[in-house]
Amino acid sequence: MYVLVTARMKTELREQLQGQYPDVTFAFKYPIQEAVPHLPKADVIITYGEDLTNDHIEKAENLKWIMVVSAGLDQMPFEKIVEKDILVTNARGIHTIQMSEYVIGMLLNVYRNIPAYRENQKQHVWDRTIKIEEITGRTMLVVGTGAIGQETARLAKAFNMKTIGVSRTGEFKDHFDKCYKNEEIERLLPEADFVINVLPWTDATESFFTMKHFDLMSEEAVFLNMGRGTTVVEADLIDALKQEKIRHAILDVFEEEPLDENSPLWELNNCTITPHNSAITKNYMPRALAIFKKNMNQFLKGGQPSVNVIDPKRGY
Amino acid sequence: MYVLVTARMKTELREQLQGQYPDVTFAFKYPIQEAVPHLPKADVIITYGEDLTNDHIEKAENLKWIMVVSAGLDQMPFEKIVEKDILVTNARGIHTIQMSEYVIGMLLNVYRNIPAYRENQKQHVWDRTIKIEEITGRTMLVVGTGAIGQETARLAKAFNMKTIGVSRTGEFKDHFDKCYKNEEIERLLPEADFVINVLPWTDATESFFTMKHFDLMSEEAVFLNMGRGTTVVEADLIDALKQEKIRHAILDVFEEEPLDENSPLWELNNCTITPHNSAITKNYMPRALAIFKKNMNQFLKGGQPSVNVIDPKRGY
Repeated sequence: MYVLVTARMKTELREQLQGQYPDVTFAFKYPIQEAVPHLPKADVIITYGEDLTNDHIEKAENLKWIMVVSAGLDQMPFEKIVEKDILVTNARGIHTIQMSEYVIGMLLNVYRNIPAYRENQKQHVWDRTIKIEEITGRTMLVVGTGAIGQETARLAKAFNMKTIGVSRTGEFKDHFDKCYKNEEIERLLPEADFVINVLPWTDATESFFTMKHFDLMSEEAVFLNMGRGTTVVEADLIDALKQEKIRHAILDVFEEEPLDENSPLWELNNCTITPHNSAITKNYMPRALAIFKKNMNQFLKGGQPSVNVIDPKRGY
Repeated sequence: MYVLVTARMKTELREQLQGQYPDVTFAFKYPIQEAVPHLPKADVIITYGEDLTNDHIEKAENLKWIMVVSAGLDQMPFEKIVEKDILVTNARGIHTIQMSEYVIGMLLNVYRNIPAYRENQKQHVWDRTIKIEEITGRTMLVVGTGAIGQETARLAKAFNMKTIGVSRTGEFKDHFDKCYKNEEIERLLPEADFVINVLPWTDATESFFTMKHFDLMSEEAVFLNMGRGTTVVEADLIDALKQEKIRHAILDVFEEEPLDENSPLWELNNCTITPHNSAITKNYMPRALAIFKKNMNQFLKGGQPSVNVIDPKRGY
């Protein structure tokens, strides 16, 4: 059994993996250029999912399973994967704690005006007049009701928020007061204090949020995007912020990443930027590998990995 | 019935009060110097509790009840109040939402390094390497298990924290895994990731936290004080921070307020300062007046106010 790892991984974790599976050969080859000569031997590939091409899949003639240690699969070469009937699993569920904490932390950062108090501290200024608001009791609209959206709604409920979920199917999910289909979002937007976008990037979600949506939001709405930047028409969002159609945007993802240093977003007072790292803590990879190991144990017994299996036609 | 209001209050709220009690005379006199001539007539005083002296109580010969629209009663002239047997009620409970949100917001601010990302945004810098940590699963020690401490523990539980409470009596309170007496704090400190001080200022709590306590805390501990500044020996805290005996202090209260502009606390990188406003949102006074009205309705019927009655000998 030959496992090719193209995801960067700390020595400690590499040693743990090899120690736990002494009969398996692990080849840690990063970046992908280093991994290419090893592709023909690989039974399994562990990747972040952003480095593989159809050509790589073609070369990996023994490949049976790809473990993507990420949730977003928008850069995966599904054409060849479907053709060669390769199993794909991902790390869905390992981002929930980090990203739901991101939402609560960033909303409180905006609502409590924490940066303004930070500036005052630098100037030794004691000013109690800068407005503070409570997130408790507000209405949160979560667009994308998967594991991350549900965990965000769970925390929102702890703050006694009204939680509304929107998804492709509209299926009811835990921690939401109500769930609706994506098509119904327009009538739901006006009442939301917080619009939390957790959409993956698929054909159906590309450019999902446009000026029409920002126009429908309250002037006091905070829009947070931690799904994919491509689900929002960024030019529309920039215009909406410039015209103060909404109160604030909190953005972890962008149409192009890294965000261009000349993007007007950097300079907008009503925009808070983080560099697509809302999920990155030291617990990330250990959690991803815990999922890998469950699947690997099944795989080594001759079974099929069954945790977080991806439908390559749906793309997430 | 003559109600003297020495707390500053918005016109809208004044009009609401007068409208709701047309047979009562409300005199809105701020600051206290303006109120002094009205003291002899007052049956009731509504105050923040920081402006009254024994002399004022002496002059208020008709006074039966003082409603303090605050929780901290450390500046109240209890000597004369006890002598003249005047009833005191406070606004205990109206700070719980704001202050528990303060705790979660500020802990996430520190753990997610939000100010560092803010600085990067100013410089248009995309840097994903600044460390982010999760507050989920940590251990929180709450010193003072009243309404604010309990609500903080409730939110901490939503983040799956271990919650330990410490109080005068050690009585078990909701949302804590365990509760202990103040005397037991020394053996509890080493395991806490977050030490949340909500102590009121009384003879028993003055200078409660000293270098001994900071020495016992983990080097990774975050100490948050939103109780009273006088419960901490500030010089010890400054030394502990300078020597990095703990990781960070989040301070809303200080030995003297406003904090002196020459205090070394302003310049410490491991200290975050807010100007004793963790509880101040636009909901503050309406919530305080809701308590006042419950008591006032009893009072007008010839009964005794019964909500949040204070034992003047205990002082909180």
